[in-house]
Amino acid sequence: MVALSELKTWFARHRDKIREAYFQFLKIPSISADPVHRPDCLRCAKWLVDFFKKAEWHAEAIETETLPIVFAEDLTAGPDRPTVLIYGHYDVQPVDPLQLWKSPPFEPTEREGSIYARGAVDDKGQIFYAICALQCWKELGRPLPVNVKFCIEGEEEFNSTGLFQMLPRLKSKLKADELLIVDFDSYAPNVPAVSLGARGMFALELTLRGSNTDLHSGVHGGIAYNPNRALVELLAKLWDAQGRVQVPGFYDGVEEPSPEDLRAFESAHKKEYYTERFGIEAFGGEKGRSVHEANCFRPTLELNGIFGGYTGAGIKTVIPAASHAKITCRLVPGQDPVKIGDAVIEFIKSHVVKGMRLELVRHKGEPAFRGSLDSKLCRAVAAASEEATGNKCRYLLSGGSIPVVSQLAKATGAQVVGMGYGLLDDAIHAPNERFDMHRFEQGFLTVGRALSLL
Amino acid sequence: MVALSELKTWFARHRDKIREAYFQFLKIPSISADPVHRPDCLRCAKWLVDFFKKAEWHAEAIETETLPIVFAEDLTAGPDRPTVLIYGHYDVQPVDPLQLWKSPPFEPTEREGSIYARGAVDDKGQIFYAICALQCWKELGRPLPVNVKFCIEGEEEFNSTGLFQMLPRLKSKLKADELLIVDFDSYAPNVPAVSLGARGMFALELTLRGSNTDLHSGVHGGIAYNPNRALVELLAKLWDAQGRVQVPGFYDGVEEPSPEDLRAFESAHKKEYYTERFGIEAFGGEKGRSVHEANCFRPTLELNGIFGGYTGAGIKTVIPAASHAKITCRLVPGQDPVKIGDAVIEFIKSHVVKGMRLELVRHKGEPAFRGSLDSKLCRAVAAASEEATGNKCRYLLSGGSIPVVSQLAKATGAQVVGMGYGLLDDAIHAPNERFDMHRFEQGFLTVGRALSLL
Repeated sequence: MVALSELKTWFARHRDKIREAYFQFLKIPSISADPVHRPDCLRCAKWLVDFFKKAEWHAEAIETETLPIVFAEDLTAGPDRPTVLIYGHYDVQPVDPLQLWKSPPFEPTEREGSIYARGAVDDKGQIFYAICALQCWKELGRPLPVNVKFCIEGEEEFNSTGLFQMLPRLKSKLKADELLIVDFDSYAPNVPAVSLGARGMFALELTLRGSNTDLHSGVHGGIAYNPNRALVELLAKLWDAQGRVQVPGFYDGVEEPSPEDLRAFESAHKKEYYTERFGIEAFGGEKGRSVHEANCFRPTLELNGIFGGYTGAGIKTVIPAASHAKITCRLVPGQDPVKIGDAVIEFIKSHVVKGMRLELVRHKGEPAFRGSLDSKLCRAVAAASEEATGNKCRYLLSGGSIPVVSQLAKATGAQVVGMGYGLLDDAIHAPNERFDMHRFEQGFLTVGRALSLL
Repeated sequence: MVALSELKTWFARHRDKIREAYFQFLKIPSISADPVHRPDCLRCAKWLVDFFKKAEWHAEAIETETLPIVFAEDLTAGPDRPTVLIYGHYDVQPVDPLQLWKSPPFEPTEREGSIYARGAVDDKGQIFYAICALQCWKELGRPLPVNVKFCIEGEEEFNSTGLFQMLPRLKSKLKADELLIVDFDSYAPNVPAVSLGARGMFALELTLRGSNTDLHSGVHGGIAYNPNRALVELLAKLWDAQGRVQVPGFYDGVEEPSPEDLRAFESAHKKEYYTERFGIEAFGGEKGRSVHEANCFRPTLELNGIFGGYTGAGIKTVIPAASHAKITCRLVPGQDPVKIGDAVIEFIKSHVVKGMRLELVRHKGEPAFRGSLDSKLCRAVAAASEEATGNKCRYLLSGGSIPVVSQLAKATGAQVVGMGYGLLDDAIHAPNERFDMHRFEQGFLTVGRALSLL
């Protein structure tokens, strides 16, 4: 056991050293999406492995065909005790547009109590407080009540290719009873949250091609079927006036949220928030569904991009050769991404204008995941977060997706719990990403105390 | 009178000199859309005025707020004789993409019988053969049977701003009985055509704005109404399943083509041509209308551009802040561009999703124009073109637009006739624009003989 006061004292004493190591971690530009930064990603993985080893963990970088996975374990609790697998990632998002950063993204800078750097919160800050919490236990010489494993991948911001590929071979290595995903948000400042799910995803790119070249819209207007018209007519059929997706089978297996779920899970934001914060007056989703239901319990189909023809200034009288759409579906438990993909494609094929050539690029889908309110880890993290913040923990379901989690849970056989101290204003994936040492400490305390409660 | 044989002899004797002057004209990069080329446009206007003056025309550059109009006249036929106003333009389209040109666009180059240069046909080549035909009459010392005026503007490829602005003040100067627009195509190689109309145009840019920033389509998906969805739903309402534009009043005043019109006017291309040449299998327009009717006698509404959200490679999970469309209508006689514009905007306003902000940029519209098969000039040009080519002249209505013609005809009080020896393969507005001295001569002979027949 480690008491809250012990964790606090240790953190206060080691604060400067923790901050220094955290900054070293942040300084490595481990942008997974950019091949130029491959050496930085490798260096970042090595830095983490070295950090674990210095703290006397058994740690290694597991090679994949793309970027290594950092793995560390402490199995001293013994085979009779449960195992907790902690997941995070050491890669970060690209930094464009660079000119909007007030300080360089890989030179962590403190301003008005916030630490500004790419990865400050997502996910270097979050995974690092978890590592520090374990380090505290070790330095205090307390025997861990559970076996602990870390799986820190380097491609979460890209596509988790390496982890997906290696999962079948890592089954026994990653085997665990509980899976802690340290990559989520709080409910609000100083109001902690446990996240027990995220939506799955299916993605599709679509092109309608009418002619082999752009045509003059006067000379040929009225003859060629304009692919832009064919596209809007096709895509408009995807919803009815009530906002329900019209693809047959789309809602198959989707369960109505139970009264317990609706009570247990809270929505961080209301309609008013969207109007005030983002100026939104038009709400989508299905008629009769609350913001909370729409975002947490219902699947969506979104047009992330549409484009065809002239997009510059003014007017150009062209009938484009082709028109394009990028579509993603967010999936809830009960929906199979393969079946949904088949159904969406079938719908599109059956509604496209005759003679218009259809080209599709289908991306790999991933199902939603859902943890249980009754898992031991869920209860431990919730209670620990309340100790760490002094406020009641809330339960959330994320509208977003962490594609690898569902398969990771399946491969390891573990129950999933998400935690984190991010906030909507942290500007993750955007310029001037930030975190602060106060929330870093809250995360540290939450992980440290949760171990005592398992 | 000048006989066909005299015109041919004169052309053969002066061929080298004509070609040299034509090349000088082509060498001036008079791109009206690019302010960088303003001095070139001014130089081009001056070159033309000087050319007219050397041939003892009364000629001048009429200043406008933008680029000058070259005006020349020979009124020696006297006030009892009709006046023919010949319209053309000395400006040319931009040359991008430059790397696709096989020879520099402003260094006229002959390859396999074709002269390659920007403006080779559109419209320097065409207006210049008309000027040469008049020069022939003068050099042969024959009295002109009609008064002749030239109006050669420098902004046809941009927006005809100067000519539009000056029209009210130029009414008496440009007054004419017949208006010859030398900026059209043949029916086919060696098959001449008289063009007796072009469609009008109305243009509109449209933006639907949902939020003040792009949103994550997972975190916020199901809440915000996606502007891309609102756009496709809105635009899809513009047509019914029969391809008829659904804007109330859109077809008001549109007359069915008479059997005489359908007989008189020919379509240069059939459906098969579109399939073979452009790979088109999907035909738009209204159900039950032939390609000929759709292109010549019916108005259209085209989506020249649609765009919103992510348009790069792969997938980005974004709900865009806004989605956009660029719309043009081609109008036929009987349609008022102002009324059509009002109706389209009213339709859009009444069908946009509640709460979605609508932003519109309305462009100035122009009506269609239509000449008469029975005008003296029409009959003269047709007969002359048959002499020049040895083939029967066809009558065409263009699906495209020359916006200023309608107002020019109204201001001058003249009947309109279009002529020209362009071909679809001449690559006007594209790299490697071309014309040839054979068609140049056919144009020269047509104008030269038409004067004899008036």
